[in-house]
Amino acid sequence: VRLLVVGGDAAGMSAASAARRRTDPDDVEIVAFERGVHTSYSACGLPYFVAGAIDDVDELIARSPAEHRANGIEMHTHHEVVAIDVQAGAVTVRDLDAARERREAFDHLVIATGAAPVRPALPGVDAEGVYGIQSIADGIALRERLDASKPARAVVVGAGYIGLEMAEAMHQRGIDVTVIDSGPQPMSTLDPDMGALVADAMRGLGITLHTDTRAQAFERDERGHVRAIVTERETLPCDVVVLGIGVRPNVELARDAGIEIGVTGGIATTSTMATSAERVWAAGDCVQTHHRVSGRAAFVALGTHANKQGRVAGINATGGAATFRGVVGTAVTKICAYEIGRTGLTEREATEAGLDFVSATIESTTRARYFPDAQPITVKVVAERTSGRLLGGQIIGREGAAKRIDVLATALWAGLDVEEIVEVDLGYAPPFSPVWDPTLIAARRVAVLV
Amino acid sequence: VRLLVVGGDAAGMSAASAARRRTDPDDVEIVAFERGVHTSYSACGLPYFVAGAIDDVDELIARSPAEHRANGIEMHTHHEVVAIDVQAGAVTVRDLDAARERREAFDHLVIATGAAPVRPALPGVDAEGVYGIQSIADGIALRERLDASKPARAVVVGAGYIGLEMAEAMHQRGIDVTVIDSGPQPMSTLDPDMGALVADAMRGLGITLHTDTRAQAFERDERGHVRAIVTERETLPCDVVVLGIGVRPNVELARDAGIEIGVTGGIATTSTMATSAERVWAAGDCVQTHHRVSGRAAFVALGTHANKQGRVAGINATGGAATFRGVVGTAVTKICAYEIGRTGLTEREATEAGLDFVSATIESTTRARYFPDAQPITVKVVAERTSGRLLGGQIIGREGAAKRIDVLATALWAGLDVEEIVEVDLGYAPPFSPVWDPTLIAARRVAVLV
Repeated sequence: VRLLVVGGDAAGMSAASAARRRTDPDDVEIVAFERGVHTSYSACGLPYFVAGAIDDVDELIARSPAEHRANGIEMHTHHEVVAIDVQAGAVTVRDLDAARERREAFDHLVIATGAAPVRPALPGVDAEGVYGIQSIADGIALRERLDASKPARAVVVGAGYIGLEMAEAMHQRGIDVTVIDSGPQPMSTLDPDMGALVADAMRGLGITLHTDTRAQAFERDERGHVRAIVTERETLPCDVVVLGIGVRPNVELARDAGIEIGVTGGIATTSTMATSAERVWAAGDCVQTHHRVSGRAAFVALGTHANKQGRVAGINATGGAATFRGVVGTAVTKICAYEIGRTGLTEREATEAGLDFVSATIESTTRARYFPDAQPITVKVVAERTSGRLLGGQIIGREGAAKRIDVLATALWAGLDVEEIVEVDLGYAPPFSPVWDPTLIAARRVAVLV
Repeated sequence: VRLLVVGGDAAGMSAASAARRRTDPDDVEIVAFERGVHTSYSACGLPYFVAGAIDDVDELIARSPAEHRANGIEMHTHHEVVAIDVQAGAVTVRDLDAARERREAFDHLVIATGAAPVRPALPGVDAEGVYGIQSIADGIALRERLDASKPARAVVVGAGYIGLEMAEAMHQRGIDVTVIDSGPQPMSTLDPDMGALVADAMRGLGITLHTDTRAQAFERDERGHVRAIVTERETLPCDVVVLGIGVRPNVELARDAGIEIGVTGGIATTSTMATSAERVWAAGDCVQTHHRVSGRAAFVALGTHANKQGRVAGINATGGAATFRGVVGTAVTKICAYEIGRTGLTEREATEAGLDFVSATIESTTRARYFPDAQPITVKVVAERTSGRLLGGQIIGREGAAKRIDVLATALWAGLDVEEIVEVDLGYAPPFSPVWDPTLIAARRVAVLV
């Protein structure tokens, strides 16, 4: 049996590794193609490398090509798969060094082509000094630039996860940072009241935030280097620009092969990570998945899903049985001392999903109120009005705040209602929590509205 | 309607407050009796007051008698309820200041008499300098003694939660601390392999730990003050002793009134916190509750349950409907930089409950491996062998480790199996977690054994 894997990052190599662990190399040959030079790197770690918190970019590489080979995976870097022939069970792969193409047969195929940062089609977007952050090469290029030219002013376009993390990275390097976002608040995955807290936090840190502001063009200096961003309102001078306006799944290869693409733009997959083509599986940032709370299709590019989906694809592609039954939309991030967590549906998303809801927002502390270093935490919980079913949660606070979202994420996963959540036996001791954990206080507050 | 509450701490005043919030003072009179002078204090905070991390003992008081009165609760301190007449619907209460008794009628009664530290019947146990830590007065007395006489050597009897917290407190004050425990390991609520990690941590901190060691007597000096603990093996000189060998529920009042006491020694209660007597409810450290995983009766004296049970009793005693459907045995604590969490059943407890199980223990980090300040974390997961149902979890690690137990606690509550837990969408970003959260790695490792 021959398993081919397209893409050597989190999803692809999770698939290859899971497949390798459960099969004998004499029975199953596992071959992976990566068009770049790195494998299994943490894209999520790039902001911290750019910030200088991580010194060596190799730290971000969980497993090198050599390590994969030592584990019994035939790993080809600088090899780009350019076509899939589903009928014949073969791919066309280009050896980028030799500039030669060849066909490789497969019994099973895992597509893990990832995603690419959105680059808006604006005048000057290709100026030097305008960075998207997805690959290790992107991170290295930006960090080298920051080290070498010590820019004074940076503009980050987009106030989502990547935007906030890149703003933090450059702020920590002493760069004057401006963040612009086309929406009315940072973190559009939060409700406006919670987004306002993020805006306050950013401004409190000394980061300039322009909401309802759209980039229209990038001005260049005589060397072709970006020197300003032009918006509807003003021209913001800057020495470096980072684009954080999201990613788009790389699905051309799959689409050209006749594999079904979902409504979100990602490759349509089932709970076994099967695609519409027999014996072709897909995983990671290139796929569409299922949102368990809204019941709708979702595109969520996140390393944790990539790893889980890859494992499931690798197990199923080698005759095992595993499932990835969707996401509940959990995410955490931080900007300097401020932590942000969210899961499930916001009020806006609940409305879009046609759900009638109630919500409550509470303020508490991460430790017992009297314990040294107790930090403020704000928790919002959204529940279905009639059933009391938990729909989502949002958290903003300081150290110890964000990962509390996991309680609500697990409760969402299990379909608990808010009255049940109030009862859940969470860990309590003064260094760790008030006697009522903040998540339970919020659930309790919502429960009385149901 | 007249609601009487016996006991002015967490459970009693949660009941009174929940009742007050949902009723009109013109309809429902709420009267609470407390034999001490303080109300609603955090006994769990006492070790940190003794340590000096909290300066003012008033910080530990969530609501004073005056605040309760301002909220519409008729609060009597220095009043001890000495008898309950269930048939007549009245209690006998002694005004400790006036040394007078009177009868007070009730329509509903909430018993929240708490628990008291076990004092072993050993020679010299009443020596000066031997402290149990349950009341504010205990905490104040010990701290005053430590402040005044600056003892050089302390012995803590019992290496459970209170024992560890008191050992930490005195260690942080620069006192030479020895902990003795009659069992083979500290933290008997953990399995031996995890307990061994706690023992290593304690010794690494410079705390002397004697396991399999039983106190036999306390030696006094000429002033009547403790000067040594005698064990089977040796005599340990010391200037102060703290007893941390557990608590016993205060149930004499209930027993004398003919109310059913459970097999664990706590007052038998239902999921509505009803006792065997009509219109008599009980909550907090004096009650027996239900363990949802073992299906057996359990006695767990913990502030978080006291607050929840009190709320439920207060709601139900005033015509509402709320439930406390048991515990899963979650607990967290720390000793200096080491954090400990546990939930559900250990291997030993699973065996006692007649369950066939599998388990796995993994080592990981609290943040992405490459992120600054990533701390080690060890997670053990126990699951039922045939069904894969989660039975319990144990965690030991440094900062950011313990509260991860909440994911397993919530999963236990909801009855998830380990294969499901592997799928749960937990928050991931490098400052907060490896891409596979340590709890999921442990669940994954167990899932393959099912």
